[in-house]
Order: sequence, then structure tokens, then C-alpha cells
Amino acid sequence: MITGKNYIGNQLSAKGNKTYNTFNPQLNLENAPRYTEATEEEIDEAVRLASKAFKTYRQVSGKKKAEFLNAIADEILALELELIETYCSETGLPEGRALGERGRTVGQLRAFAELLQEGSWVEASIDTAQPERKPLPKSDIRKMLLPLGPIVVFGASNFPLAYSTAGGDTAAALAAGCPVLVKSHPMHAGTGELVASAIIKAAEKTGMPNGVFSNLNSSGIEVGTQLVSHPGVKAVGFTGSIRGGRALYDLAAKREEPIPVFAEMGSINPVVILPKALKNRGEALAKTYAGSITLGTGQFCTNPGLLLGVKGEALSHFIQVLSHEIIQIEPSCMLHPNIIGAYEAKKQKALSQPELTVVADFDTEVKTNYARQTVTTVEGLTFLNNSTLHQEVFGPYSMVVQCEHIEQLEQIISKLEGQLTGTLIADNEEAMHYPQVIAALQNRVGRLIYNGVPTGVEVCPSMVHGGPYPASTDSRFTAVGIHSIKRWVRPFSYQDWPNNLLPDALKNENPLKISRLINNKPTTDTI
Amino acid sequence: MITGKNYIGNQLSAKGNKTYNTFNPQLNLENAPRYTEATEEEIDEAVRLASKAFKTYRQVSGKKKAEFLNAIADEILALELELIETYCSETGLPEGRALGERGRTVGQLRAFAELLQEGSWVEASIDTAQPERKPLPKSDIRKMLLPLGPIVVFGASNFPLAYSTAGGDTAAALAAGCPVLVKSHPMHAGTGELVASAIIKAAEKTGMPNGVFSNLNSSGIEVGTQLVSHPGVKAVGFTGSIRGGRALYDLAAKREEPIPVFAEMGSINPVVILPKALKNRGEALAKTYAGSITLGTGQFCTNPGLLLGVKGEALSHFIQVLSHEIIQIEPSCMLHPNIIGAYEAKKQKALSQPELTVVADFDTEVKTNYARQTVTTVEGLTFLNNSTLHQEVFGPYSMVVQCEHIEQLEQIISKLEGQLTGTLIADNEEAMHYPQVIAALQNRVGRLIYNGVPTGVEVCPSMVHGGPYPASTDSRFTAVGIHSIKRWVRPFSYQDWPNNLLPDALKNENPLKISRLINNKPTTDTI
Repeated sequence: MITGKNYIGNQLSAKGNKTYNTFNPQLNLENAPRYTEATEEEIDEAVRLASKAFKTYRQVSGKKKAEFLNAIADEILALELELIETYCSETGLPEGRALGERGRTVGQLRAFAELLQEGSWVEASIDTAQPERKPLPKSDIRKMLLPLGPIVVFGASNFPLAYSTAGGDTAAALAAGCPVLVKSHPMHAGTGELVASAIIKAAEKTGMPNGVFSNLNSSGIEVGTQLVSHPGVKAVGFTGSIRGGRALYDLAAKREEPIPVFAEMGSINPVVILPKALKNRGEALAKTYAGSITLGTGQFCTNPGLLLGVKGEALSHFIQVLSHEIIQIEPSCMLHPNIIGAYEAKKQKALSQPELTVVADFDTEVKTNYARQTVTTVEGLTFLNNSTLHQEVFGPYSMVVQCEHIEQLEQIISKLEGQLTGTLIADNEEAMHYPQVIAALQNRVGRLIYNGVPTGVEVCPSMVHGGPYPASTDSRFTAVGIHSIKRWVRPFSYQDWPNNLLPDALKNENPLKISRLINNKPTTDTI
Repeated sequence: MITGKNYIGNQLSAKGNKTYNTFNPQLNLENAPRYTEATEEEIDEAVRLASKAFKTYRQVSGKKKAEFLNAIADEILALELELIETYCSETGLPEGRALGERGRTVGQLRAFAELLQEGSWVEASIDTAQPERKPLPKSDIRKMLLPLGPIVVFGASNFPLAYSTAGGDTAAALAAGCPVLVKSHPMHAGTGELVASAIIKAAEKTGMPNGVFSNLNSSGIEVGTQLVSHPGVKAVGFTGSIRGGRALYDLAAKREEPIPVFAEMGSINPVVILPKALKNRGEALAKTYAGSITLGTGQFCTNPGLLLGVKGEALSHFIQVLSHEIIQIEPSCMLHPNIIGAYEAKKQKALSQPELTVVADFDTEVKTNYARQTVTTVEGLTFLNNSTLHQEVFGPYSMVVQCEHIEQLEQIISKLEGQLTGTLIADNEEAMHYPQVIAALQNRVGRLIYNGVPTGVEVCPSMVHGGPYPASTDSRFTAVGIHSIKRWVRPFSYQDWPNNLLPDALKNENPLKISRLINNKPTTDTI
């Protein structure tokens, strides 16, 4: 049941007087529940509880933490229809999407639980002593990963479940042994509260310390600002706009103790279509891409906003078919009036640039909050010289850049800002003739896709969701998959530490039976 | 032979008119060679060459990079006496230390070469496709670590070899596949140039691209500032003061494209002596610590600047013996007049704090640039309330804090700034009765030492040299050991990429025979 309150640790709390409602974009009206924004005092209390909880939670065994994560998954599923209905009412997204995203969220939690149960993720490493070594004896040194401390997670507007309250950032941080403070996204405060209630229930059932999780309502920037500035907070996870992510990054960098901010931000996800592929199957590609551009009303961070090809008949035909196909697609609802407002504004900014041609524009009347899809085209040189055209237009929008020749295409790619993904469309052996194009693309992205679409981010160990700035604020980490846990941990060494005082992962007898490096060789042996 | 010029890639260059000499602190006079600071134009050219070199160097095989690193080690050894003499003349350190540090430097290079030859460090991970999966087919996704791009390394004053030109940061970056631009430390520009010449020779002999390494002379902050601000630079490694490291961190965070700065900075390395140990072997401990405090004239980042115990007879006796012992030690030379100047100034600042007692002060006359060792003591409450006393005094200085009780000791530790190391001195089963003290200490440091001294950083895979801020700017990485390579790499995914176009590490047939995750299970199997 939605109360509109914050969770300050296990306690519901609403001491403030700033309130707000969420909005149903399909019905174009406010949802009934009223949410109370967290006060400064409540935020302080939540951080205090998190810091206190950290003292015990960081020492909870992997098996117990796995129980906790699995219990969260169970409690989310136990919310049943209420969660799905709330999700739909706060996003305008269809039930199928809600169910799919819930599956993804639950799957992520269970994947981290499995990681913890297996246990080798702590990267235990043991270098044994050599007391006889000359000129100096060698100490026994052992290393493993330890949690950083309380983490702030910002809910994402476009993934109310999978990248929000109990989404990837939260699951990874809790798995690492870090308490989590969620800055709830105002557009889906109800979904957020329901999921928060599931986490709290799971924490209580599995005996986790009060403060291991808090959920803070917020309608503006104040709550997030206070959280990121708080000395008790040790790292930040964010998914959203470049402007928002950069502001948090700057805030964290200015702290007396700077903290890591992993922000996954904007991307236009360049797609390079090589000449043979364009010639041999331009029509099929155009149809596929009409679908990818409009998928989820274009509200994916991996939406293909930039298609690149070499000028000519084949590219012209591709543009023609893409324009025709995309107009056939029924427009759909965006998440919130603010999101469609930003879409229209950014699209208008793009369309107002000189030498840009609109090739497809859905101009029939649409329902309120429904987005009209648009495709534009520009010459390569125009694109190169106008960085406004490189900016993401979040929504069902894409631009085809017609390059003079393959060298210009390579030049454009190498001058692009960092991207989450890059896609190469090629026929048969064609790709091997373009090593420079591939190398340039690789250098600007976090993931390369061959003959596919960038939308759809598989949750698996080999996935990288991240990339050079501004795709993310730190390309050395991924936001998706079990290895995203590395954002919230630090390596730690014990020198000549007594065996009985070592954590289990580093004890001689290897009680967890995990894989460890012993004198730099991987093994499950005891010592 | 020392020319006083910069290496802009493989070319010696001295276009500037700002020159400087290094200084022999033992003789208290300038060394003869004159060094020409790099100009803006030379720096630009060095970065341009590095960016160009990156295009090929990032694709050089592990085996070839290993040859390069081993060749650097060989060429450093081939410098023979000239290097050792130059080192001593620029640091005032004895030949034994020079030889030891050269051994460490060569050892680090060879350890990275071995890592590259083995090859599994790229953390290759393959999730195979499931074309039949419902509701959506699963793509083939493969991940590995790739180099970030050109890295700037700042030479450290206190380790002219092991943490400078071809030191740990450089070795790790070159191993990762990143070109390196060294901002040479002005105090040992000659040592720097000699080592740079060894790197250039090795690069030429093993066919590495021009620009894979540059060495830039610098006497002030301008060269470093230009390098860290340069859009072509992708990360920074630094060892030095908090002030210097923080300035670089701030500069990098303000860039249009922020870049990671790994700065290893100040630390006072708290040592906790538990009551039984203090009582049973206070005298022996005092002797050991008199040695550790003065080792290398106290010029180690792991120097024990803070000793903590509970007030009483045993602690008083410990202080007495420590004071007596440390005065017996013959003072030694510091690296440079600026270093001894800073030592004296920081010591005076500490000594001028209220309620601080000097218990040992070497007051006999010493040679110019020789440091007088000093030990002070304060009450726990005084220390808690005066953060000036928490500041590092770089040199042979330490302070004994006399805590009221063990709870105050724990409180002091938990309020300490981040530290590289923490040491626990305990007798027999004593340590197990102080879990809170250990937990508090662990939370503030990167490495815990049991019944030892913090000085001496073993180069091995399990070593963590780093820690919470301000010990380092990012506690998620170590500066020492083969895993320090992780600072300079990012994970990268290929989706449905053709086998023949994949890098060898990810090919079906596993031509490098490395250990990989296949569907999350470690194996050396083919696919």
C-alpha cells in the first residue's frame, strides 16, 4: 500500500511539508497519492543509520547477503498487480513492458545472489611469506575486495524498476556490502515506494541491520544535492541526462573528501552502415531501424540517434524507405509531460540548425503526451562542424549523416563524443576492409554491435553498459551485469595477519571453497 | 649521457628558454647539467605523437609489449654506474638505496612483462548466443579490458626510479597498452633523462611506435597543468603531496571530458599498540619504531607518523625508550633543500600547537640538509580536537597519542582521515578482544599490518598501496603490484562480432590459451 512517506531505514517518515503527485501521461492527469519530500533532518538520519548499518552489514557473509537479495526479489514479485498497475499509471508504458522490466529486476537481484553464494568475486589473493628471503624476509600478504560504505542511488526516469529503487545499482551495492540510500525519482514515486517496501520487508525477514536501505522522496534537486554532499556517503550511482550526471559529478569532486560518481548518461549510439550492406539489404535495414528508433517511444539510452553511411543512391533509397516505414508506426506515449516537453524542445533545436533536412515527420494529430517520430538528414561536413547536431534528442528521433566518402565517415566517428554503443552493419567479408572505421568506433564506445540494433542491453557477465565520457563519467566500469559490483568495492591488504582474525575468504583453510590467487596462481587449494 | 633535453617521442628536443639544475644535497651545491623545460609546443607535439602511437600500440600483442618492458629493464641495467651516480648526486641517498630501488624498478617491469606473457589479465569473458531463447534470442557477447589512451605520469620526489620515469605507474600503463608522457620531477631530472633514454632505446629496439613514450622536463607547475588539461590525455598517475595531488584531481575534474586521476598522497600511518604488547615488549617495540621512523630519513609515504596507545606506565616507558633510542640514530640527508625546508616548517607548525610535548629532539648540530628526528606526545582528547595534528610531517617525525581508554582510541581511529596503512601491535590472543578497534582501523586504511612496521611496500599481487582519501584519490585501485594495471583500462564488449575480427583474447579457438570466463565459468577451453 502506498503511503507517500519516506523510508528512513525501516521507518516510514514524512516530516516535511513539500509534497507532490506523480502523473499518468496516458490519462493526462495526476495520480491520487501524495508524496512528502524528505527533509534535511530525515536525510541526515537516513545517512546516520546507513553509516551505523555499514559497521555490521559489511561483515555479513555472502550467503546471508544472497538470502537478502533473493528475499527482495521474492517480495517484489509478491507485490503482484499493485506494482504493475502503479508502474503503468506512472509511466504510460504498457503492462508487457512492466512485466518484462520486473523480470529483469528480479533476474539481476538473483544473479548477484548467485555471485555471492559462489563467493570468488572478492578476488582473494594470497602471497605467502618467505622468512628466509635475502636481503629482506618477505611478509605474508593477502588481499580481497571490501565494500566502500553507504552508496546513493538515483532512480532513473526511463527504468522505474531495473535502474531505480531495487535496480542494478542498488543490487550491486547491496551485494558488495554497502548500505543504499535511494533518491527516488519523482516521476515514479509510487513504484519506488512499493519496491522500497519490498526491500525493507526482505531486510527485516533476513535480519539485516536497520539503515541498510532508505528511500527518500524528492521532487527537485535539493535531496540529491544534500545526499551527494553528505560526508557519510561514499559513492554515487546515477542514470540520466548529461546535465544531471555532470552536476552530481562536479558536486562530488568538490567535496572535502571527493567520492566516485558512476553516472551513465546520454548517448546517440552511432550506427555505421557499410556500402555493400546498404546496397544489398538497405530496405530490410530501414525497416529494422524504424522499429529500433521508435522502440519504447525512443526512451532507451541505447536508442540509435545517428545513422552513418556514404552518400549515393543506396543511402538515398535507405532514407526513403526508413522515412516511409517510420511514419507507419503508431506513435506512443512518453513517460511524463516533462519528458515529451524536453523531446520537443531538443528536436526543435536540432531542426533549427542550418542545412538539416527533415525526411520523416509524423504530422497527424496525436494524443497528449504521445511523441511524433522524426528522421532528419545532413551532409557529413555539416555534421562535423556543428556539435549541436551531436546532442542526444531523447525520444523517437534519429539523424542520417551522408558522408562524402569513407574517410569522412571515419573522421566523424573519431571526433564523436563518447558513446554507450557503436553498431557496424556489414555484409559478408566487407567489415575486414574497414579496419580504421572499426578502430575509430571502438575507441569512442563501450560496446560494439555487429549487424544488430543497439537497443536491448542483455544482463550477462560479458555486458559493458558504459563508455567514454559523456556516455559515463568513468569508462572503467560497467553499470550492467555482475561485474558492476566493482564500482562499489576497494581492494584491501592484510600483512602477516593472524589466520583466526582474517575474513573467511583469506583464511588458510579456504572455508568458502572459493577460487583464489595463491602466489599468483588461481586455485581452490588450502594453504 | 645527460643532455638536459626533453624526449618528444624518440627525439631529443630543447626549444624552450626556461632552464634549471638539479641539486646535490650532500654537497649542498647544484649539479652541473642544465635542463630545459618543455615548451607548450613541445608538450602538444608529445601528446599528438602519443595519440597517434596509441592507434597502433593498443593493438600490439601482449608478447611484443612484454619484450618492450623487458628491454626497458635491460636498458636501465645497461646504464650501470652513470645511473647510480646520478641518482645519488640528485637525492643525497646512499648507493645501496639506489641499487635497491633500481632492483625494484626492474622487478616491476619484469613482473608486468610476465603478466602480459601469460595474458589472462585482460579478464576475457564470453557469453555464448542462445538463438532459440524465448521471448527474445540472446546475442553472443564477449568482453575484455582495453587501454584508455595516453597517460600522464608525474615523477615522485622520494622514489626517482621506482615511482618515477619507468616506475610502477609507467610500467602499468605501458603494459595496459597506453602511451606514457612523463612529467619529470625537477629534483632528479638527470636520473629521469637517463631512464627515459633507456625507454626510448627499448622502444626502438623492439619496434614500438614513436610517441609511445615522452619525457618532459619541468621546474614548476605549468608543464603538469598543460598535460592534465590536454584533451589528448586520458588519465593521470601521481605520487606526492596532498596539495599537489588534489590540485591535479581538481584540474582533471573540471575538464570538458573529466579524466581519472590516481594520486597516491599523504599518510601518517597510524600504529596501534595494544596494552599487553606494550607491557610485555615495550622496549623492543620502541627500538624497532625508532628505526622505522628514521628509515630513509623518514621520506617514505608509509612512515609511521602516529603511534597510539592507552595512557599508563607502560606507555610512558615506551615513550621514554623511543625518545632515548631515536636520539642515538645518526641523522641523515634529505632529498633537497626544499624537502628539508618543508620538513622544518611542518614540524614547527606541529610543535606550535597547544598541549603538545616534545619528548625527543635531536639538537646537536647537523650537516646542511640533514634532518633532525623528533618525537612528540599529546593526550587523546587534544589530538581528537585539533586536526592540524593529523597532518603529515614528511620526514623523521612521529607523535605518540596517549588515549584515556580503548574507547577513545577507537574514536580517534574512526575520525582519522584515510590512510595508506594501519598497524596493530598485539600479543598472543590479545587482538581478538579488540574487534571494534580492528574494524575502525580497517575502515580508514588500505593495508593492515600485524606486529610489523608500515615501512616497506612489498611488490606482489596481493599488495594494496592506496586507501581512502586523502591516502589516494580513488580507493578502488592500488598503485603497487600487477593489479595496478586496472587503473589504465576499461572493459569493452563485442556483440555478435565475427570471430575473425575479434581480438585474439576473445576468439573461439583461444589462440592465447588464456583463462577466460565462458558463460561465467573460468576455463581455458575453446568454443
